[in-house]
Parts: sequence; structure tokens; C-alpha cells
Amino acid sequence: MTQISRRALLAGSAALAASPVLASAPIVGTQAPGFYRYKVGDYELTQLFDGAATFPMPDHFVTNVSKERAIAEVARMYLAPPGEITVPFNPVLINTGKKLILIDTGYGPNVSPQVGHLPANLAAAGISPEQIDTVIISHIHPDHTNGLHTKAGALAFPNAEILMPEKDWAFWMSKENAARANDPVSKAYFANAQKTLSDLIDHVGTYAWDKEVAPGITSIATPGHTPGHTSFAVASGKDRIFVQSDVTNIPAFFLRHPDWHVMYDHDPDLAQRTRHRFYDMAATEKALVVGYHFPFPSRGHVERNGMGYRLVPMSWSTTL
Amino acid sequence: MTQISRRALLAGSAALAASPVLASAPIVGTQAPGFYRYKVGDYELTQLFDGAATFPMPDHFVTNVSKERAIAEVARMYLAPPGEITVPFNPVLINTGKKLILIDTGYGPNVSPQVGHLPANLAAAGISPEQIDTVIISHIHPDHTNGLHTKAGALAFPNAEILMPEKDWAFWMSKENAARANDPVSKAYFANAQKTLSDLIDHVGTYAWDKEVAPGITSIATPGHTPGHTSFAVASGKDRIFVQSDVTNIPAFFLRHPDWHVMYDHDPDLAQRTRHRFYDMAATEKALVVGYHFPFPSRGHVERNGMGYRLVPMSWSTTL
Repeated sequence: MTQISRRALLAGSAALAASPVLASAPIVGTQAPGFYRYKVGDYELTQLFDGAATFPMPDHFVTNVSKERAIAEVARMYLAPPGEITVPFNPVLINTGKKLILIDTGYGPNVSPQVGHLPANLAAAGISPEQIDTVIISHIHPDHTNGLHTKAGALAFPNAEILMPEKDWAFWMSKENAARANDPVSKAYFANAQKTLSDLIDHVGTYAWDKEVAPGITSIATPGHTPGHTSFAVASGKDRIFVQSDVTNIPAFFLRHPDWHVMYDHDPDLAQRTRHRFYDMAATEKALVVGYHFPFPSRGHVERNGMGYRLVPMSWSTTL
Repeated sequence: MTQISRRALLAGSAALAASPVLASAPIVGTQAPGFYRYKVGDYELTQLFDGAATFPMPDHFVTNVSKERAIAEVARMYLAPPGEITVPFNPVLINTGKKLILIDTGYGPNVSPQVGHLPANLAAAGISPEQIDTVIISHIHPDHTNGLHTKAGALAFPNAEILMPEKDWAFWMSKENAARANDPVSKAYFANAQKTLSDLIDHVGTYAWDKEVAPGITSIATPGHTPGHTSFAVASGKDRIFVQSDVTNIPAFFLRHPDWHVMYDHDPDLAQRTRHRFYDMAATEKALVVGYHFPFPSRGHVERNGMGYRLVPMSWSTTL
């Protein structure tokens, strides 16, 4: 071992203190919390970012457009690295002042580090899972329902009533329907639903369309993506916002091209008709829309654009 | 005073505990922190939201377009309540791993509660003002420079060298130029510069164009908005981003309509030529651009759109 004198050590430490290579602050490497608050009348809503998945473009991500066209569209819209695609996931929390209501739960902890960030972002927003009174599921797909459970399989929101769209609950939990499924996407959805939701059979409630599912929250029929796929109007005072759920997957694709079919649609023709009906309404009424797969913080207006539509995102505001 | 028995109090408190009007969680009323991190090569950049100002549409906000047209455009782009306009402010922090460099400082504490949030968002990002090594000013306008001082008038970043664009420093600090100013906007800018920056005359350094102003940060001439208005290329490894500063004010107006002149431009014709030159480059190179007045978190690509351009915002990412 080389002997180093105390004098040299002191000199070295002085040199180090004066060195320009010393970092002023460490590289942090982590993102800001993914939550965003806004008001709808007296209600306080919080967008909760569950994350975004980037994955190689599937062969039939858009079932009625070529993979090459889909890959070119990703590049045109700067959505992901070449040959990949990115899909974000954005549940929404509604504080009515009396009740805390969560619409959809994110992907949960068992899928990938890219997703399942809702619990962390809920904590960053100052809310504990135990405080949630009601969880409303828009439709039974894993990115919306799998966050109902913790990694250990317990209820993620232990004090919450859970409300499922009645048509989806009947459809996806049916063993007969599951046995008849003959495409890999539907098979995977049936398998996930029956694996992850069967413990909830005596626990959940169901809701119908055109009902006030919770105070100020009305269910709207937007079927096609799934048989019971539901959007919501959230109204307080004179304000209203539409929580569209998955009327589109990513808007850069399916809002701009409403006649494109995403591989996850159960009845793509019905989903297409639903898109036109919903966005014609939203554009005409200049309605504010929240989309589960819109870029965080997921709020925007819909404007007509040629044969399709375009999202005009709402800007970040410091004030609510 | 009405007497209330202990029994009634207990009954009341039991009734209260069981009451559905008890909030599960209080309405919070405040926004999530306004910072956002991303990587450029080995560098870690942090967008810091200073806030957004909403104000009645000035008579000549767009000097070469009618106020009615400007008001209609706000409505069309859902930018603000009727008759008003919203402008956001977004400084950027660059951590090279060795140095912490802040480009522009926000409006500081003396303007309005709508703005001056940079210090709070810097703190939320885990950085103290004392850690900043260098402050680079893109141009001498109050929303970029007034954050150099605290409310008490001390240096907001006490250990930082301050670098000003040499042409702006010479122009705006000249008493002769100030005396010659004959329009209210220029007069206000001269007055603010000489009031708020005179204490820094022996403290600041200046920089020229086309120079590496700090490690990996190159100054780019984009004059017009002010005589010394500067953009920056920030490069590390194979990555690069352009910090455009104010080549446009809000992109919904002046990126979509590059021939519109904002009332804050010193030489509007030169600013217009600069816009076309800069955005032709950005669109052709598919460059990533940060804009001081882009919607937070302020990153996007520029695409050509008819006679103008359009911003394609980058989506929020959980990973850096």
C-alpha cells in the first residue's frame, strides 16, 4: 500500500473541493410524480398516471391497416422509437367532497416496470388506497382491472365498493363464452378476467347504462371495444367532463383515423360507429374529454380534422 | 347560549361519524409540482414550470391581426376563457453531471401569484438555488430575467455566474437607447431592465453567438424578438435538443401562424424571418424543441402545416 501523508490527503481534499468535475447535484434518474389536479364544478379530479408501455409494433395493431403504415404513423407523430409503439394508461380519481371515486385501476403490479405506477402516484397525490370509497370499472380489460389487486393478491382498495359494467361482467366472467373464444386476444382477455376477478364474484356490484352510478357520475353506452364498454359524464354545478375510457386507444392513431381498428376491439365495426357518434358529439358540444390512453395529463378537446378528428390537449395549469 | 348535554354531544358525534357527508379525503386545491425530467445523452434536463399568466386579450397582442381574430383563435384552440389569453413560462435546468446550468429564470416573486413558481418547482425537483453553477439568459425580457432576484432583492442563485447575450446586454442597459424608446412596450422593457439588472453590472458575463456558452450548450442567433435573442443547442453524445427560447410566443398562435407578430417583438419582420428559418430547420431535421412558451412540459417536434407549422407535443414518460 502506498503511504499517503496527512499533508497530501489535505492537499488532495482541497484540490478535490476546487475541482470542476465535482457534481453540483447528482443525476436523479427518476421522473416527477404523475398526477394532475383540476376542478369540475365543486369536484376535484386527479389524473393518475399508471405509466406507459413501449413495445414492438404488433403485426396487426391496426387490424385494417398494414403494419408498415402503422409504423410510419408512429414516426410521423414521434410516438416511440422506430418500429415500436407507446400506449399510456390514465385512471382518474374524483373527489366529490363526500366520496372518493376511482375510475379504472391501471395494470397493477404484475405486468411490467413500465406500468403499475398508480399506487405510487396516488400516494404522491396524498391519498391512501384505504380512502377510496368506490372503484368504477369502465370495461373488463387487464389495463383497467388488474390494479384491483396488490402483488400479494389482496384487495388494493380494501374499503371500496367495486362496480362493473353489467354487460361486461356477464360476458367476460362466463365460462361458456370463454370456451367459445377462438382468437388469441379474446382468449387472453377471458383468461385474465377469470383468473384475476373470480375472487370478487361475491364482492362486486354491477351498473347499467344511462344511470347515475355515483353522485354526479353518469354511465354512457359506448360499446364495441368490449360489449359493456362504458364512458362517463362527470358533472358538478355548470361544469361537465366526459371520461371516455377507450372509445379510442391512442388518439394519434384512432382519433385522427376513427375508421382504423385497434387489435383490442371486441366488435371493431361497432367500436368505429361508437367513435364517430361520441366524437361528433364532443366536437359539436366543445366538450372536455379525458381519455384513458390520451397523453398524460389526458385532458383535451376534440376538433374535426378532415375525415377524422384531432385532440387539442389542455395545457398544464398551476391553478385548479 | 344553548346548553347541549353530553349525551346529545355524543349522539351528535356518533351521527357525524356515520354520516355520508363526511369527506373521505379533503379537497386539496393545489396542483402537482411542475417539473419534468428527461435525458439528452448523459445530461439530465428538468423543465421547471414558472406558471402561466391568464389576462384579458390586449388590443394589439397580435399586431398585424385584429383583436377579434385573435380572440376567435383562443376559442378555437381552447386556450383561455372567452376574451382572455394564457401564456405559460418554462425555464429549463441542465445537469451535465458536473455543472447545473439554468436557462432563464422566470418572472420572479414580484409580478403576480400566477407566475414566479420556479423556486417552488426547483425545490420540488430536489435542487436548491445555491447549487446552480450558471444562469444563462436567452434575452432580456422580464419573464426571463426577473427571477434573478428574490423578493428582498438578493441574488436568487447566489453561487451562479450569470451570462447575458452580449447584444441584448448592450442594447437594453444603454441609457441612450432607453431615452430614444418611443413605444410603451419598449419603454417598459428598458425600465424593467435598468431597474432590475443595474446591480448586476459588475457581476454578469456576456456571451456571443455560435459559441459553446457552457459544456455542450451552443448559442444560436435567433434575433428579432430582441436584438440579442438567443436559442441554444444542448448536445450530449448522439442526442441533441434545441432550446428555442422565444422564437415564438405561444405556439397555438405563432407557430401555426409564423407570419403573425406578437406585440413583444422588437423587430417583428426579423422575428418572422427567424421563425421560418428556425422551424424549417427543426421540421426538416425532425429536431426536438423546447419552447419557453410551449405548454408544460414544453417539449415537442415541429411539423409543417400548410403555410405554417404545428407542434407535436412529446408525451409524458415515467422513464427518463
